[in-house]
Amino acid sequence: MSAFPDIDKIEYEGPDSDNPLAFRWYNPDEMVEGKSMKDHLRFSIVYWHTFRGTGSDPFGPGTAVRPWDDGSDSVDNAVKRVRVAFELFEKLQAPYYAFHDRDVSPEGSTLAESHKNFDTLAAALKEEQERSGVKLLWGTCNLFSHPRYMHGAATSCNADVFAYAASEVKKCLEVTNELGGENYVFWGGREGYQNLYNTDMKRELDNLGRFLHMAVDYAQKIGFKGQFLIEPKPKEPTKHQYDSDAAACMNFLRAYDLQDHFKLNIETNHATLAGHTMMHELDYAGLQGGLGSIDANTGDLLLGWDTDQFPTDYYLTTQTMLMILKHGGLGSGGVNFDAKVRRESFEPIDLFFAHIGGMDAFAKGLKIAAAIRADNKLDGFVKERYASWDTGIGAKIEAGEVGLEQLQQYMLEKGNSDANASGRQEMLEAVFNRYIDRV
Amino acid sequence: MSAFPDIDKIEYEGPDSDNPLAFRWYNPDEMVEGKSMKDHLRFSIVYWHTFRGTGSDPFGPGTAVRPWDDGSDSVDNAVKRVRVAFELFEKLQAPYYAFHDRDVSPEGSTLAESHKNFDTLAAALKEEQERSGVKLLWGTCNLFSHPRYMHGAATSCNADVFAYAASEVKKCLEVTNELGGENYVFWGGREGYQNLYNTDMKRELDNLGRFLHMAVDYAQKIGFKGQFLIEPKPKEPTKHQYDSDAAACMNFLRAYDLQDHFKLNIETNHATLAGHTMMHELDYAGLQGGLGSIDANTGDLLLGWDTDQFPTDYYLTTQTMLMILKHGGLGSGGVNFDAKVRRESFEPIDLFFAHIGGMDAFAKGLKIAAAIRADNKLDGFVKERYASWDTGIGAKIEAGEVGLEQLQQYMLEKGNSDANASGRQEMLEAVFNRYIDRV
Amino acid sequence: MSAFPDIDKIEYEGPDSDNPLAFRWYNPDEMVEGKSMKDHLRFSIVYWHTFRGTGSDPFGPGTAVRPWDDGSDSVDNAVKRVRVAFELFEKLQAPYYAFHDRDVSPEGSTLAESHKNFDTLAAALKEEQERSGVKLLWGTCNLFSHPRYMHGAATSCNADVFAYAASEVKKCLEVTNELGGENYVFWGGREGYQNLYNTDMKRELDNLGRFLHMAVDYAQKIGFKGQFLIEPKPKEPTKHQYDSDAAACMNFLRAYDLQDHFKLNIETNHATLAGHTMMHELDYAGLQGGLGSIDANTGDLLLGWDTDQFPTDYYLTTQTMLMILKHGGLGSGGVNFDAKVRRESFEPIDLFFAHIGGMDAFAKGLKIAAAIRADNKLDGFVKERYASWDTGIGAKIEAGEVGLEQLQQYMLEKGNSDANASGRQEMLEAVFNRYIDRV
Amino acid sequence: MSAFPDIDKIEYEGPDSDNPLAFRWYNPDEMVEGKSMKDHLRFSIVYWHTFRGTGSDPFGPGTAVRPWDDGSDSVDNAVKRVRVAFELFEKLQAPYYAFHDRDVSPEGSTLAESHKNFDTLAAALKEEQERSGVKLLWGTCNLFSHPRYMHGAATSCNADVFAYAASEVKKCLEVTNELGGENYVFWGGREGYQNLYNTDMKRELDNLGRFLHMAVDYAQKIGFKGQFLIEPKPKEPTKHQYDSDAAACMNFLRAYDLQDHFKLNIETNHATLAGHTMMHELDYAGLQGGLGSIDANTGDLLLGWDTDQFPTDYYLTTQTMLMILKHGGLGSGGVNFDAKVRRESFEPIDLFFAHIGGMDAFAKGLKIAAAIRADNKLDGFVKERYASWDTGIGAKIEAGEVGLEQLQQYMLEKGNSDANASGRQEMLEAVFNRYIDRV
Repeated sequence: MSAFPDIDKIEYEGPDSDNPLAFRWYNPDEMVEGKSMKDHLRFSIVYWHTFRGTGSDPFGPGTAVRPWDDGSDSVDNAVKRVRVAFELFEKLQAPYYAFHDRDVSPEGSTLAESHKNFDTLAAALKEEQERSGVKLLWGTCNLFSHPRYMHGAATSCNADVFAYAASEVKKCLEVTNELGGENYVFWGGREGYQNLYNTDMKRELDNLGRFLHMAVDYAQKIGFKGQFLIEPKPKEPTKHQYDSDAAACMNFLRAYDLQDHFKLNIETNHATLAGHTMMHELDYAGLQGGLGSIDANTGDLLLGWDTDQFPTDYYLTTQTMLMILKHGGLGSGGVNFDAKVRRESFEPIDLFFAHIGGMDAFAKGLKIAAAIRADNKLDGFVKERYASWDTGIGAKIEAGEVGLEQLQQYMLEKGNSDANASGRQEMLEAVFNRYIDRV
Repeated sequence: MSAFPDIDKIEYEGPDSDNPLAFRWYNPDEMVEGKSMKDHLRFSIVYWHTFRGTGSDPFGPGTAVRPWDDGSDSVDNAVKRVRVAFELFEKLQAPYYAFHDRDVSPEGSTLAESHKNFDTLAAALKEEQERSGVKLLWGTCNLFSHPRYMHGAATSCNADVFAYAASEVKKCLEVTNELGGENYVFWGGREGYQNLYNTDMKRELDNLGRFLHMAVDYAQKIGFKGQFLIEPKPKEPTKHQYDSDAAACMNFLRAYDLQDHFKLNIETNHATLAGHTMMHELDYAGLQGGLGSIDANTGDLLLGWDTDQFPTDYYLTTQTMLMILKHGGLGSGGVNFDAKVRRESFEPIDLFFAHIGGMDAFAKGLKIAAAIRADNKLDGFVKERYASWDTGIGAKIEAGEVGLEQLQQYMLEKGNSDANASGRQEMLEAVFNRYIDRV
Repeated sequence: MSAFPDIDKIEYEGPDSDNPLAFRWYNPDEMVEGKSMKDHLRFSIVYWHTFRGTGSDPFGPGTAVRPWDDGSDSVDNAVKRVRVAFELFEKLQAPYYAFHDRDVSPEGSTLAESHKNFDTLAAALKEEQERSGVKLLWGTCNLFSHPRYMHGAATSCNADVFAYAASEVKKCLEVTNELGGENYVFWGGREGYQNLYNTDMKRELDNLGRFLHMAVDYAQKIGFKGQFLIEPKPKEPTKHQYDSDAAACMNFLRAYDLQDHFKLNIETNHATLAGHTMMHELDYAGLQGGLGSIDANTGDLLLGWDTDQFPTDYYLTTQTMLMILKHGGLGSGGVNFDAKVRRESFEPIDLFFAHIGGMDAFAKGLKIAAAIRADNKLDGFVKERYASWDTGIGAKIEAGEVGLEQLQQYMLEKGNSDANASGRQEMLEAVFNRYIDRV
Repeated sequence: MSAFPDIDKIEYEGPDSDNPLAFRWYNPDEMVEGKSMKDHLRFSIVYWHTFRGTGSDPFGPGTAVRPWDDGSDSVDNAVKRVRVAFELFEKLQAPYYAFHDRDVSPEGSTLAESHKNFDTLAAALKEEQERSGVKLLWGTCNLFSHPRYMHGAATSCNADVFAYAASEVKKCLEVTNELGGENYVFWGGREGYQNLYNTDMKRELDNLGRFLHMAVDYAQKIGFKGQFLIEPKPKEPTKHQYDSDAAACMNFLRAYDLQDHFKLNIETNHATLAGHTMMHELDYAGLQGGLGSIDANTGDLLLGWDTDQFPTDYYLTTQTMLMILKHGGLGSGGVNFDAKVRRESFEPIDLFFAHIGGMDAFAKGLKIAAAIRADNKLDGFVKERYASWDTGIGAKIEAGEVGLEQLQQYMLEKGNSDANASGRQEMLEAVFNRYIDRV
């Protein structure tokens, strides 16, 4: 029985299509830079927003109409949701999905019961994965919603809460492994603080380091080969989240000797809440070998909270794909739509409109990025701009052959530095537009 | 001849004084936690804002009335300024000052002439230091104002500019050393980018790492014993400054193996521009052993640029001093007023009002912080709040004795985590006020 | 039966008290500027946060422990809550409270049933008001939580929703009148838009104007004498709220000829979300005769959402009281604590700590403001600063006696304008601190 | 003698052109919605940024290479600049330009000399206007750069400064009239405050009202028929600018009875600094009959100051043109590039790249907007969405036939409001992209 009887599998119809239930740009098998669009983009749909989001906000309860869902937290209802989810994944031609433990599986009255529920749901997910071919991009634990996690999970002031969280992670790692999850993510929901008057930041960070090492150790024990990821976000729900941006995450990984085991899952809305562009966070993570996966969405830069909107801006998607292509792709990561329909877009069909819009925007972004790269329009400019480093004094500096004394001597002899050249920002912005026009 | 003939040395008169040219809280030799206020606070006055600031802004030229300054960039005028500066330092009872090379010494028509000018000024500064006993907190180079640095200095796309900057740093290190400077600071004025389309971020960061290593090497060669500092700031003048916050700085230092040689100079206005509280940046730097010095000022949190206002808010100064005391003081660093009088506060006497206000606010902040610590009001609460980590499962976790399996077993047996306790934020804020009331 | 058996009525003990369940500054009958503190401050406690707030946030459900509340939406439970609320009001010595219809009274399955429930609750409230002497500062309707209001209430694209909202306002006006409410407030919960692509802003604003006129007409009919108030807020839950700040509200009232009937209820957190200080919004509203009441809270200026924290900052409370005193007090308005305890402050006693902290901060702010006024420290400076307007050309301009031609003639003859004087911001900030120190 | 000998008049070559010195979209005589592109867009180039901008910023002096400019403030140099300016206007096919008095004409040592200088320059401008056919979009006075205006001009605490400013406005009105200027603009450079402790906001606003009335009166006297405009901006250089956004401007105009004489000049970067989208400010001004002209630029939403970048984002330009077309065009206003090349784009040719990029982005935005309108894609959706207001209870409400009582009766009978429909934001965003793709 279909949950979306009026919606067929979404097919590629090309840019001229006026069908809002067709792809205009996402053509899965189309080749770009020698790889299929599907393999470049590795689209993933999130269980939490798409199947557990209700449209509630701090000023009102949910609005979403979801006829297949009885609104209960029963295991039966949860299993029914799995069937609906995979129908949507398939109709959207999404190769991947992602979940938190509690999205797919209800919390039981005891930890044991929670685990039992999770086993039941894991079986249903596995069945659907096998039937459909849709794969698990990543699993993660929800260690922030339950009141027990009010003060954090791994960074709680309450040691028992750390232990409880560890118990959940163990289980979720097993399930993720069983389902062939290609990554495992830690988003530090409440790993941060509301107020420094009552907080021992050092102890909390040390414990967070311990927590992640335990996960690494256990993954090795059970043979989980997926990539571990942490996810930068600067604030919300806490006033200050420890994993505030890519730099803070990398510093944390270095400080706690976790750099070999973790990469970053970069989210657009989190980047901008931290005052950075998505392009910056991707490039920064990439140049340190830390780019793992992305949460594809967008914020509203005039709003100060995580709006998790679907990404439709071609500038954003092109810049994102430029960085992903530059850093060699996402590896085991993907373009994961951590995005939710607006509270006012409450019908099931809005889930389709939203994902189609996002997938098309990324597909066109990929094509624009590839066209810019094919013509060497930005990289070529950059290479030329830094040419002084390829020879002469620049090359000597990069080779470590000179120090302050030699450089001063060089400059005293030369008298002044060579003239600078214009940065040409305005021209490059016009060049960028040229490629938006042409693809 | 006095530049401030109507202003006597500022003296402590106590909280009841109505004299705007007296200290009400800063009593240099008063003991707090076993050390004099003077030694806790190590106040420093900046040459750039206080003696080179004109009140110009992007919408108009300077307004400042400075009768001692002929407005020229001559060496004579520069020497005259030195005399005035030390008169102000002494009248304000400031034990330290700080400068950029170009603040004190005019740029010559050649690099050699610039160095010669700097030698002349260094001699004048040394004479005044010896006469007055005022000391140099730190020296630094201005590697951002001259048009040659438009694309950055150590991170310029132009290798010659790196060489030129290196020449200046060599000279400034020598002068700082000669003057007994206790620190040497790098604020990365234009070390960042305006646009990623034309930027090779990796190459720029690698070169920045090389630059700082060269400085470390040369300092060792000349026997400079001062502490090296870098200074977090997220933006302005560039769209993105590489040293964006304490976390980005620490990550950079770790990535380029500079952590043993550098600490951080934390500035309030830079902290808030990066979305952090000053208290956070201080605690974060401190817990990693990276707290070196502070730039004492305040921003306007409703404005998005670096306003560099004088700090007068007791909440800010108390929180700052709480963190400094917690992390064992500033070592060779100090409380450096990187602050400027408003464009509308254009008379010389405003320089006094401004510094007195800031020094008093810090002195009272120190006293409030010490009182809170004496009663163990916050630390005691924190210690109790994390008590579960001192015994039982918490102690085992911290000792590294358990992993995910043991923790899951523990929790399955226990059934649920121990109850949480209230974070009591509102009560603690009221406690904080109690100490503002009483000091 | 007491809900707070361990908490006695909060009494004034003076600044030296260490009792967190006592007032240190709020001494209701203490006279300030010829009026009691109680009459200056007119404290009010909000029903929604304090009795219906659960601590839920977008990342997790409620945490609050409220033993008296069975968590149901039954009328019985609602009546029980009324008893508890008045116990708290009395113990806190709060002379006022405020509610939304749906805070006190459960939504029924029909509009008629909702009204019936509201009658039941109104009777309980009236009984408690009469017993305790606590009065109703204002009533208001919740026209934003129910899914029917997803697109707004008075500004909905759905005319029926306007009609439904009008029905609720009629009822709530009657109840407010019956309970002797001294004001009636409209906070435009979802009166705004999420997206301009689907919005007819003009039609929505016109309808909002109609809606408020209907309320004015009906109030006159039933003899309601209270003051109508609208409440500025720039965003959240919608992307753009029409009543974005005091200026937008005043412009709206003028455009729709409502200025004689409405004043503003100014909230600190809303002011700062709009990029203004609370002091600005109060002064701006006041100088136009639009200052009606305040929602006393504070935001976190580094966070972009409405945190509704309890106000404890003496700078804020002093500035607020300076403006209220300057504009002749709040009239029928009050200092209404639209503030909520943090999610982590989940115990009933935290409600007391929070309100005591806020009341004391305002009481001290009142005393500081009065002391500054008594010494004429700011007003006197301002009067002197504008003295050039009291005579000569300034007086002629203000009297309307000169135009561009006369002024040009005057200036051509005079040659240049008289010199400016320093704005002395830094000195005034130090003066402000002096009064914080002394009260 | 040409200042740009290597640059020919910029011609339209169509979207396929790779020539960075050609228009790809701006085809002046191409008809769109029955009017030429030239008449829709009325492009204007600003004298201040383009001919007086140096690239200086708060951290360094200018970088711009302008071979025709000797850097002096002489009248001769000023006249030479005029010739160069008109060469650029013509080569860019810009039909309009705009200036401040002090951009084109040097400040003299007396007011009389300043006026004499202005007469000389006005003659040169007139000559060039007549020769080239380029027209003056608007004139304005710079009442913020000179130190005399440190405390504001019309809102100064110094009455003489008001008189001086009035003298300048009189002169500039005369010159603007003589040059056939189609508008006259007031941007309140320092009309605001830095601090409320020293400010009498009411007196300042009253004086600002008087000032504008004087201008209106004098314009009538000399027969100036142009449109008066004020320009919203929330902050910078002052902490709070009185004309903070469109709503504040409209409220001010209403409060001081100036609404019949003034419209608004809306700037993108000012809109976003105020927390609004450009689309919002345009629609808001338009629906009140206050949309006069636009300053076309863009800010960086992650930066908190006025970056005045050239606009190249198609979403922005399309949204802007949608609003301009919706509200019937700009009348005597225009698309005025209040934008500056980056400090690093210091060569003359960058001025061309920048303007071409902006003009093309607006030309394409116009075409996209017209295509959306031709298909009735957004307006049609909106009309349908509000259909309930066209009949039944909606029509009665809009006709003023019902009040709260009738509406309550209606709803009690009906039982519940009609169901809402989805807002379809995600679908509409995808529709928008479809038109970006196709034009």
